[in-house]
Amino acid sequence: MPAADRVRALRAQLRAEGLQACLIPSADPHLSEYLPEHWQARVWASGFTGSAGSLLVTDEFAGLWTDSRYWTQAEAQLRGSGIALMRAGQAEVPEPLDWALAHLPRGARVAADGRVLDLGTARRWRTGLEAAGLELELARDPVGAVWTDRPALPAAPVYEHLPPHACRSRADNLAAVRAGMRDHAAQWLLLSTLDDIAWLLNLRGADVPYNPVFLAHVLVGLDEARLYVATGKIGEGLAHVLHGDGVALRGYDEIACDLAALPEGAPLMVDPARVTAGTLAHAPRARLIEAANPSQMLKALKTSAEAANIRRAMEQDGAALCEFFAGFEAALAAGKRITELDVDERITAARARRRDFVSPSFATIAGFNANGAMPHYQATPQSHAALEGDGLLLIDSGGQYLGGTTDITRVVPVGRPSRAQLADFTAVLRAHIALALARFPDGTPSPALDTVARMPLWREGLDYGHGTGHGVGYFLNVHEGPQSIAVRARPRPEQAMRVGMVTSNEPGLYREGQWGIRIENLVLAVEGERTAFGHFLCFETLTLCPIDTRCVLPGALSAEELGWLNDYHALVRARLLPWVEGPARDWLLARTERL
Amino acid sequence: MPAADRVRALRAQLRAEGLQACLIPSADPHLSEYLPEHWQARVWASGFTGSAGSLLVTDEFAGLWTDSRYWTQAEAQLRGSGIALMRAGQAEVPEPLDWALAHLPRGARVAADGRVLDLGTARRWRTGLEAAGLELELARDPVGAVWTDRPALPAAPVYEHLPPHACRSRADNLAAVRAGMRDHAAQWLLLSTLDDIAWLLNLRGADVPYNPVFLAHVLVGLDEARLYVATGKIGEGLAHVLHGDGVALRGYDEIACDLAALPEGAPLMVDPARVTAGTLAHAPRARLIEAANPSQMLKALKTSAEAANIRRAMEQDGAALCEFFAGFEAALAAGKRITELDVDERITAARARRRDFVSPSFATIAGFNANGAMPHYQATPQSHAALEGDGLLLIDSGGQYLGGTTDITRVVPVGRPSRAQLADFTAVLRAHIALALARFPDGTPSPALDTVARMPLWREGLDYGHGTGHGVGYFLNVHEGPQSIAVRARPRPEQAMRVGMVTSNEPGLYREGQWGIRIENLVLAVEGERTAFGHFLCFETLTLCPIDTRCVLPGALSAEELGWLNDYHALVRARLLPWVEGPARDWLLARTERL
Repeated sequence: MPAADRVRALRAQLRAEGLQACLIPSADPHLSEYLPEHWQARVWASGFTGSAGSLLVTDEFAGLWTDSRYWTQAEAQLRGSGIALMRAGQAEVPEPLDWALAHLPRGARVAADGRVLDLGTARRWRTGLEAAGLELELARDPVGAVWTDRPALPAAPVYEHLPPHACRSRADNLAAVRAGMRDHAAQWLLLSTLDDIAWLLNLRGADVPYNPVFLAHVLVGLDEARLYVATGKIGEGLAHVLHGDGVALRGYDEIACDLAALPEGAPLMVDPARVTAGTLAHAPRARLIEAANPSQMLKALKTSAEAANIRRAMEQDGAALCEFFAGFEAALAAGKRITELDVDERITAARARRRDFVSPSFATIAGFNANGAMPHYQATPQSHAALEGDGLLLIDSGGQYLGGTTDITRVVPVGRPSRAQLADFTAVLRAHIALALARFPDGTPSPALDTVARMPLWREGLDYGHGTGHGVGYFLNVHEGPQSIAVRARPRPEQAMRVGMVTSNEPGLYREGQWGIRIENLVLAVEGERTAFGHFLCFETLTLCPIDTRCVLPGALSAEELGWLNDYHALVRARLLPWVEGPARDWLLARTERL
Repeated sequence: MPAADRVRALRAQLRAEGLQACLIPSADPHLSEYLPEHWQARVWASGFTGSAGSLLVTDEFAGLWTDSRYWTQAEAQLRGSGIALMRAGQAEVPEPLDWALAHLPRGARVAADGRVLDLGTARRWRTGLEAAGLELELARDPVGAVWTDRPALPAAPVYEHLPPHACRSRADNLAAVRAGMRDHAAQWLLLSTLDDIAWLLNLRGADVPYNPVFLAHVLVGLDEARLYVATGKIGEGLAHVLHGDGVALRGYDEIACDLAALPEGAPLMVDPARVTAGTLAHAPRARLIEAANPSQMLKALKTSAEAANIRRAMEQDGAALCEFFAGFEAALAAGKRITELDVDERITAARARRRDFVSPSFATIAGFNANGAMPHYQATPQSHAALEGDGLLLIDSGGQYLGGTTDITRVVPVGRPSRAQLADFTAVLRAHIALALARFPDGTPSPALDTVARMPLWREGLDYGHGTGHGVGYFLNVHEGPQSIAVRARPRPEQAMRVGMVTSNEPGLYREGQWGIRIENLVLAVEGERTAFGHFLCFETLTLCPIDTRCVLPGALSAEELGWLNDYHALVRARLLPWVEGPARDWLLARTERL
């Protein structure tokens, strides 16, 4: 069915339910980055497949809001649908809520699926609409009523994350979370975010691509814990193990009746950014205690055992990359035709041969020259480039291993890159090294570290439009909080940088239509010195893979920067050499030569 | 009367008024940094003369809260008063509000002088107390009832800030502020902060030390403006001029009846951090529109004509410092006994000889060795050091000129400083240069620039406990917002760094009991490049005075840092040479030699 027909069906449904408008965000009841197909209502209704966007449909208007990353794609995919592209972020484009306030009459009823709206957003819409005399309906699902072939929820089995890869016991995790609850005088804690749940219970799944999580909710009490997960996903043996740790199994939907059964005034802790209005609507009698999930900070602070496992996973990941690059360069040298799609395939195959590999941690980005200038570029069978001529190839990829999650970006030469390309590469490398060499007091707000990486670029009038670093999970989501090395991140106290946090270091530079550069390693915040002036931390670089020195203009590096690069390559060589042989070994030796 | 007797009298007054407690903050109705004696109720009641502190008195308890800068002084001054020193900032010391909640019974009535409590603080106290069943009384003044010899309010005359020093017209300022009011659909704007008022009306005064302001309120309407100022401060001629610009004069206290006379629902714009609860209590019928004062941002963005005047003021200030330092070094060389107090006297005398000088812009800090390690040290006739032996002298001083406000810190050698002292000086100089050389996109949050200055120190395990930069007024307060180069500043959107902002660059290093270093220049944010990657700004250093190269270890500077220092000294020499002669000229030439 084309999108125009779907919008037509949706409008009929709105009329049937006496609704004047319907908001369809891109979200699920767990506020995940990757949505199961079942929850891709916005994709289904609009035909636009980008990861971010909101659709607003009224009787006379349909508009899709999405940010600049997706404007080209959305324009193409919306053609003929009758849906207007609303370029979110442009000054003259109102937010969906403001559009609704400006165009809908008093008394209008606006539906939004409360099951997938986070509490903060739902409150903002309710306040805004009600102040103008409109109504927000959170309990209706007009899209669901017309989406007759809606896919079922995923049903991948859940498995246990076991020692030696799991380094903390389920009992310890529960005890630590309960200590956080007691700090807020809470008796119950509701978790809906899938990485919090997987971490808390040492469980993993495969319900969505790339993130090893499973659809569930958890209700933690001071003496018991209940896991709400679809029947059949957890085998009998695992159920028994969970029972032994005081975790009772309940059906996925039973969260509703259990929340409803909480006694009047029961102190229920929730993170308003990490639960949905629809889930909480089942708990009208609870007294909400709003605070960050204690599990968020606990899982961000990796233990030394976890850090040791991540180092081992990095060796496997680095060795896989040596194999990939050796084969890639040999194929190019032999004149074989290689495309961006081949890069993805070859790199995933190389990782799949390494021990403890589970899956990619996100969709590989392989962009040659102009394609590399689009930070979220995805090559497709319909549209991709062959690696022909001269230039730079940007590869951003990562793996899920039982002992850690990796995320690495390298830029390598194809043919003979230009001097301007080498100058840009060197500038980005200087930014990368500036952050790698940083030392800072314990608890420094992570957003403020962003200027350290950017200053070498800023001083040359260069910049990039994304953050410099995101937190990374431990065999979990490749994007996790709370830290964020992004100068324009909305500041929150929990962004303080602490020992044990794993964060990406990924400055970049993008010349539209020409080329893109990003150099990304993962770094671990570790103890530095304790002096009369404070308790200092520094970064240990975890990622192990050569940075292509053929792209560096050595004269543009300071002695200290050159020293960092040579030291890094000596480390990469020493750590990866035991894991590679044949052409991969030769490649490693060549690419880790001192500069 | 000793403080113990004053507390006793206050307690009797509390009983007489049926009050259980009384909070006495350090503030006035204008929320100023410097308080007229009339508003120094906390000093009067406690005997503690530090600039920051709150006194809480109940029938059985009296406690003075102050931060670590003042603990030693407070301990001495509170001795025998029966007032407990509450070390604010220590983990186990509750805030005054939390102390009150923990110790006072339900139903207790707590008085705080609403006339001097900012709206935000008053709301926080009211919410906290009422939630616990206590009452807040903002309209009582038990201290005033027992303070029989309370000094009168200051009555210095008000004068006009005239061209060429005033670079914007009163009419333009009023128009710009009214545009800000219209953006918020406000019909009235209440200004109580004295620098906003002085700036808006091109008026200056001398009611408090160092800041050229006068006690007043202003009520700006869309077609009229009313200035509330004590009778006699403004002469007939000036009153006529003001009248011509649509500014009506009213008595200082008439703000109360005029606010009360605002019509029901009148849209009144106020900045909750810059008006007091007591002033606003007179406007119960107005509809408050809470937003930053438009004047705050307008006065922070210096015009090019103002920048040109500041550069001229800096030449006068620099020339005064050349004279001072030449005389100071000659006196030391001649074996004269010089104390920290002499430094203050000589430096003020040198400035007083320069054109357009009005007054010091704050109390000079002159601290030798260990005294320099106290960032807020004040030498007194009772306690000060003589400059004998070897070490470092820190001098932080500034002047008010008709064409600008200066603030400069230099550290100079006395005798032969140690190698450790030189190493520290050089480290601080590297931090200073790092910020001086920064380039950054327009609108970069100013707090994030702090890491740029600190990183050279952090990398050596060094740090300092104050911010790196504060905004500076134009012949106005030496501390003004909204920008703040302080990584731990509570972030607000208006802290974005913009062209025209004048900010201090003052990293430091303090070794308790040994020595202190701070190198401070004022910098102006100016246009840098516009590139494909954005609109970049950089800093022009405004302050003109040699940085003592006898304290520098040149080998610890990079070529770029050395280049900055030599370029700076070439500029200082060229700009100051026309303004000095004799020994001051010789001194300037010697101290600006290339390194």
